[in-house]
Amino acid sequence: MSLIVQKYGGSSVAGPARIKRVAERVKRYKKKGHALVIVVSALGDTTDELLELSRQVTRSPSRRELDMLMSTGEQASVALLAMALHELSCDAISFTGAQVGILTDAAYTRARIVSVETRRIREELKKNKVVIVAGFQGTNPDGEITTLGRGGSDLTAVALAKALSADACEIYTDVEGIFTADPRLVKTARKIDRISYEEMLELASSGAQVMQSRSIEVAGKFDIPVHVRSSFSNKEGTWIVKEDRSMEGVLIRGVSVNRDEAKLTVTAVPNRPGVAGKIFRTLADGGVNVDMIIQNIGKHASTDISFTVPKSDAEPAVKLLRKIAGKMGFRDVSFDANIAKVSVVGVGMRSHAGVAAGMFEALGKNGINIEMISTSEIKISCVVKKSDAEKAVRLLHDEFISGKKPKK
Amino acid sequence: MSLIVQKYGGSSVAGPARIKRVAERVKRYKKKGHALVIVVSALGDTTDELLELSRQVTRSPSRRELDMLMSTGEQASVALLAMALHELSCDAISFTGAQVGILTDAAYTRARIVSVETRRIREELKKNKVVIVAGFQGTNPDGEITTLGRGGSDLTAVALAKALSADACEIYTDVEGIFTADPRLVKTARKIDRISYEEMLELASSGAQVMQSRSIEVAGKFDIPVHVRSSFSNKEGTWIVKEDRSMEGVLIRGVSVNRDEAKLTVTAVPNRPGVAGKIFRTLADGGVNVDMIIQNIGKHASTDISFTVPKSDAEPAVKLLRKIAGKMGFRDVSFDANIAKVSVVGVGMRSHAGVAAGMFEALGKNGINIEMISTSEIKISCVVKKSDAEKAVRLLHDEFISGKKPKK
Repeated sequence: MSLIVQKYGGSSVAGPARIKRVAERVKRYKKKGHALVIVVSALGDTTDELLELSRQVTRSPSRRELDMLMSTGEQASVALLAMALHELSCDAISFTGAQVGILTDAAYTRARIVSVETRRIREELKKNKVVIVAGFQGTNPDGEITTLGRGGSDLTAVALAKALSADACEIYTDVEGIFTADPRLVKTARKIDRISYEEMLELASSGAQVMQSRSIEVAGKFDIPVHVRSSFSNKEGTWIVKEDRSMEGVLIRGVSVNRDEAKLTVTAVPNRPGVAGKIFRTLADGGVNVDMIIQNIGKHASTDISFTVPKSDAEPAVKLLRKIAGKMGFRDVSFDANIAKVSVVGVGMRSHAGVAAGMFEALGKNGINIEMISTSEIKISCVVKKSDAEKAVRLLHDEFISGKKPKK
Repeated sequence: MSLIVQKYGGSSVAGPARIKRVAERVKRYKKKGHALVIVVSALGDTTDELLELSRQVTRSPSRRELDMLMSTGEQASVALLAMALHELSCDAISFTGAQVGILTDAAYTRARIVSVETRRIREELKKNKVVIVAGFQGTNPDGEITTLGRGGSDLTAVALAKALSADACEIYTDVEGIFTADPRLVKTARKIDRISYEEMLELASSGAQVMQSRSIEVAGKFDIPVHVRSSFSNKEGTWIVKEDRSMEGVLIRGVSVNRDEAKLTVTAVPNRPGVAGKIFRTLADGGVNVDMIIQNIGKHASTDISFTVPKSDAEPAVKLLRKIAGKMGFRDVSFDANIAKVSVVGVGMRSHAGVAAGMFEALGKNGINIEMISTSEIKISCVVKKSDAEKAVRLLHDEFISGKKPKK
């Protein structure tokens, strides 16, 4: 008998009919003799609906109260799934994050899991019950309800798998696994059977939103095999596992695109020490997440600095920087939301040269201008005009993965 | 400075606009210097919507899981009200029943409050915060979420008023107070200024659904003055208080009607000891609430027994009784859902004779047949045909309250 943690996302439990289908799947696994811990997200669009309610009441909700509000979504889901399992004569019991002992720090709306108690879960598993745990939520040591940020249910699942030493962690979603590129953009995209934690992490942070980044990090840290698969079929999905030799045989594992960032440019920045430091300190203190940064240091008295931030952070970032413009002596801040970041990812890059050159050539030959570049050991990202993004993804997928190079 | 507990029902917080209005009212009270504890129900129809969701998943939901599901409604409300108060720069903090220490027994969906901790609430009141508590819910000693049954938020408010030794408990609703009869049925019905706990209890249990019966009982037991009033106006509502001399001057405080019961008749019941006992023991064990009972014991070998139950209990009751019909030797069970119970209530009855006679005469003269009668010290109830119910209420209101006796 193995212990499996399964996580079902919002689309898998969007409404009573889908909840019943999840219950049937869970029951099938139970019948095979597995011990099961199920993590559930809020029903369908519940999270967005609750956010909208709060927006109608206030523009700047307290984070503590937001967590109080948002955590109700998952609580409703677990109760409904337990009922659906009972209806199938499958013994089950639901828990909130607080009840099951998912302890977090006090950072409301983006709390980190500090520890997971397993006593209550183990007790119920011993009684042969399916244990259903509300995803996305926990409590801090004062008993206040916290949430783990977007995609936090993935983290709940991975943390439970770790705490319970589960044999596997299955992430159910509405796609069949991780693809070499978004199949809506690239017809030749295909499902990836095995991917390393690092590759997955790079893909997730560069636009592939199948699984939350932090949960992949944790899974990797503790070497928990994660199986991303569809809740609408029985096909094998994608296994996220430790990197092995065979993975190096593939140069590029996947191509991703992120259209949710904006590019900011600070113009005529005085060429003296400390200015760039002050700019990014100001942004960090203001809670702005900066992604790519480029700066051309020349012999001139001043230069431009460009960087990308999530679109939602763009306006606050501009305001923050305009406040210090006079004091720091730079001219102005402009921003461009019509950009996209296209990335290629693969551990094979480590042992193969020339990927960057191939990428720039493929884009250049086809008239796509590269505005910014950043690289990691296993990823190369280029910022291009948003209108060029889809074409760029197709070109790079053909170049590195499907092998049907575009006609020259 | 006085400490006031205010409870806002579902209609008072049905949607963001109404929540904001409640926040404005709360802020006005706060500005007057009062310490405030606010109890909130679920938004508008949320409770019914959650029930409907559960019905689509299963016909017989586990009571534990129902409570897990239902308690999310009030949790969302308290968070939203806290946000609305913050928006008005009024410091406030929300709590679930569990967080604030409302301990109940383990009777899911109809738990009784065992004790209320006040440490956390007092701490926050000391910080000059408005404390918002989710109504209707608590936890049992195992940390399981329980709910207090329909109207349970009233009970939360009264229990908190008791535990905190509050100066008053205000129940906000969508009507202006308790009326001498339902104003939709009787045009001359008027608001009652003061009513005793006992009268209110009898009115509530006989159909006036402004406040939950159990909460009135508890308020009476601990002598907590309750003010029932409208959240849409600033007018004084109805004070529910200890009976005093002046109340006896009024013969009948109010007329109520209950159309949610059905009459069951067990026919040809053998006239021997123990049969009636067995019948009502069977119903009690099956969870059926029996209200009025009549039986004509004659010299015959058998008799009929009639009683009323909530409509929702009628079918289960018939099934339970048919199972024992053969063994107990009665013929059959029939039921009639087309009935209504009309009641007159008033502590003045104790010192005035002839109320019953006046009631029966008023109904009889107007061709309304009385099918069952039951009386308490301060109430007389008659079961009539449902089609006669409205007419009966008007006649009795004219006879005893508005004084415009019908022409003879």
